[in-house]
Amino acid sequence: MIAEIIAAGSEMLTPFRQDTNSLYLTAQLNELGVSVAFKTIVGDNLEHLTGAARVALGRADIVIFSGGLGPTEDDRTREAVAAALGAGLRRDAQIVTAMYKRFAARRMAMPENNARQADVIEGAEVLENAVGSAPGQYIDTVVGRHRKIVVLLPGPPRELQPMYEAGCRPRLAATLPQRHIAKRMLRMALAPESQVDARTAPIYKLYPDIETTILAGSAEIQLHFFCSKTTAEEAQARVDELVERVEQEMGDAVFSSHGESLEEVVLLMLGLRQMTLAAAESCTGGLLAERLTSVAGSSRYFVGGAVVYSDRLKTIFADVPEETVEREGPVSEAVARALAEGIRRRTGASIGVGITGIAGPGPGAPGPDAGKPIGLVYVALSTGEGGGGTTVAELNLTGERERVRWWASQHALELVRRSLLERG
Amino acid sequence: MIAEIIAAGSEMLTPFRQDTNSLYLTAQLNELGVSVAFKTIVGDNLEHLTGAARVALGRADIVIFSGGLGPTEDDRTREAVAAALGAGLRRDAQIVTAMYKRFAARRMAMPENNARQADVIEGAEVLENAVGSAPGQYIDTVVGRHRKIVVLLPGPPRELQPMYEAGCRPRLAATLPQRHIAKRMLRMALAPESQVDARTAPIYKLYPDIETTILAGSAEIQLHFFCSKTTAEEAQARVDELVERVEQEMGDAVFSSHGESLEEVVLLMLGLRQMTLAAAESCTGGLLAERLTSVAGSSRYFVGGAVVYSDRLKTIFADVPEETVEREGPVSEAVARALAEGIRRRTGASIGVGITGIAGPGPGAPGPDAGKPIGLVYVALSTGEGGGGTTVAELNLTGERERVRWWASQHALELVRRSLLERG
Repeated sequence: MIAEIIAAGSEMLTPFRQDTNSLYLTAQLNELGVSVAFKTIVGDNLEHLTGAARVALGRADIVIFSGGLGPTEDDRTREAVAAALGAGLRRDAQIVTAMYKRFAARRMAMPENNARQADVIEGAEVLENAVGSAPGQYIDTVVGRHRKIVVLLPGPPRELQPMYEAGCRPRLAATLPQRHIAKRMLRMALAPESQVDARTAPIYKLYPDIETTILAGSAEIQLHFFCSKTTAEEAQARVDELVERVEQEMGDAVFSSHGESLEEVVLLMLGLRQMTLAAAESCTGGLLAERLTSVAGSSRYFVGGAVVYSDRLKTIFADVPEETVEREGPVSEAVARALAEGIRRRTGASIGVGITGIAGPGPGAPGPDAGKPIGLVYVALSTGEGGGGTTVAELNLTGERERVRWWASQHALELVRRSLLERG
Repeated sequence: MIAEIIAAGSEMLTPFRQDTNSLYLTAQLNELGVSVAFKTIVGDNLEHLTGAARVALGRADIVIFSGGLGPTEDDRTREAVAAALGAGLRRDAQIVTAMYKRFAARRMAMPENNARQADVIEGAEVLENAVGSAPGQYIDTVVGRHRKIVVLLPGPPRELQPMYEAGCRPRLAATLPQRHIAKRMLRMALAPESQVDARTAPIYKLYPDIETTILAGSAEIQLHFFCSKTTAEEAQARVDELVERVEQEMGDAVFSSHGESLEEVVLLMLGLRQMTLAAAESCTGGLLAERLTSVAGSSRYFVGGAVVYSDRLKTIFADVPEETVEREGPVSEAVARALAEGIRRRTGASIGVGITGIAGPGPGAPGPDAGKPIGLVYVALSTGEGGGGTTVAELNLTGERERVRWWASQHALELVRRSLLERG
């Protein structure tokens, strides 16, 4: 069983807009055991759309369209699919009446054009649109001697997704052989993809019935596991077994085995230990704070901190001695250490983080930082224990400004996580 | 002249990965006067790829492939295109030699498989890969009685883009009728799309030779203008004329007419006036600081600030009186005002911004904030002039946590911009 997804809309043939519905639809179809073999994007052009529909009917068992169901002259999916199937279109009186009512309720006259949305392809079932005005259509038919399922869904994701769930998924599920799916994901920070793959491939290759996908990006590696069996229990047990073996291999490098982000994990760990965190950020400019506060409920464990972009603020908000900045340069181990210790003392948090570095575009400023390269970042962590308890990591990051900042924030979160792990 | 872009790679048929090369390629083709009529995404499957190539040759004049040029068994684009064209593949001795040298230089043995990358389709010109090992191919041929241009480019954007620029664009430009393009973009913050369209459509519709695209998103509207003429001067003059008329209509709402971001504009304006900015952020949690510091060179005009997520930090870092927080609640006009004034005084910046609000997921905490709804945000701006000079905007934002935070930061930037505009 293979599927093709066709996105209709000229805006997706500009340099500005992507088709995103296909990611959602692919995940949904995979859960029913259907692979997507082709995705096509085509403009609001009847000839092109009809041609694309014919091509899809020739190479896929299930064809799902998104978009082109609106009331305007540009919305041609209904006509194109009817033409490709050699089927007629009839105007559905019930839909027309419902549309008139919708408009009347808002005390508006319905534009004549809108009735086009009530054109239903012969043999199609109508899929109700709970959110917008364009109904969808579901066609289970035979082309040549092959059974084909063709589905028409509206383009806006907030209309497409509920319609898929309420109208399309149950119909597909009733048609397709029943499958039970289990999915898990493991997340690791900062690890090189090649190393993760080298260590985990010998394990996951022992499970050919589980689809394993390694995704790398944003200073994080994700391992996705997907398994389909005749019972849900069997699928879940199989995936859990593999996840456990991979976790054993990778150990503490795995920060999340149920999908939580690194920020969420750090906050959860702080909460379990009744500890709080504060940060003084120079080169990351608030990125660490922004990431932590993007998690709802973070205020109980992340108290806040300071963005000490200028040298003066390092002193004003984190008590970094002026002479340290002058002697060592703002980008130095000593300043990172002073930032972490200062912000911890000032805020009364259990843990203080200090970050200073050179994000680019140029290398260190004249003075003690002269010659220090782009990507040099110091991340310090202060717990105030044992007469200081401050550790500083020196990072040599590569890439552009945005990448250096992101990796620095990721290192800081990982440093906090590792430190919390150590205290058990 | 219409084009089809085909992205080859099974990873783009999972729920995890998008084809992004097509956005770049579309922009490039548009500059040469070529419209993209179809985009197809297909997996690493010879039969599917060959079928997709045949379909594309039947409906487009220019077919550009990305991906599937690597050395592995999964890389089938060369074979598929050769089969679709009915052409042979010959192994290019020169490419093989160059590959052996590459490997030898790194003191590695070349895997046997790699030689596949030297397979060239009959009649193709080889496009050099300056970054990676997979060469591209450019084929100018006749299929049926129609001239077809077929281009094979590697999948990684950092290889595809330089290869397009060095090898593909010049060949296409030499083949296609010469076009001269002018592009401009206007950006506006916070304006509703419908209002921008209602006011600008009567103007841009007078210029049917200019393609106008309105993009809305992230609390910003962009108006893109694109014009193609026989001389560059003519195209530029025409676009500039339209831009000027639209700017006249929209006035100060336009923050950028040469592509700068709102952060960049605010920093430029501060620089021109030799002024500095500091921020005390509660609900935005560092997002405003993060946005400003993402601009290279921002440290001269954005000194930093404080992330005052907990009530205590509001007092510690911005001198907000405890009794104000207790009486009015942390989410109040009074606290926003105190934050802006406090951070300005503390840091010595010319302008202080204070942000406090309820980003969600829940409404205000018990106490004076009880009953205050999600999305209520106060943004204050203090200039210290005329015995205070503080203005506070009350916002009632909708949507989820992330959206509320983004819109709040956008309002803050726009408030600073408007205030700087006023002082001329």
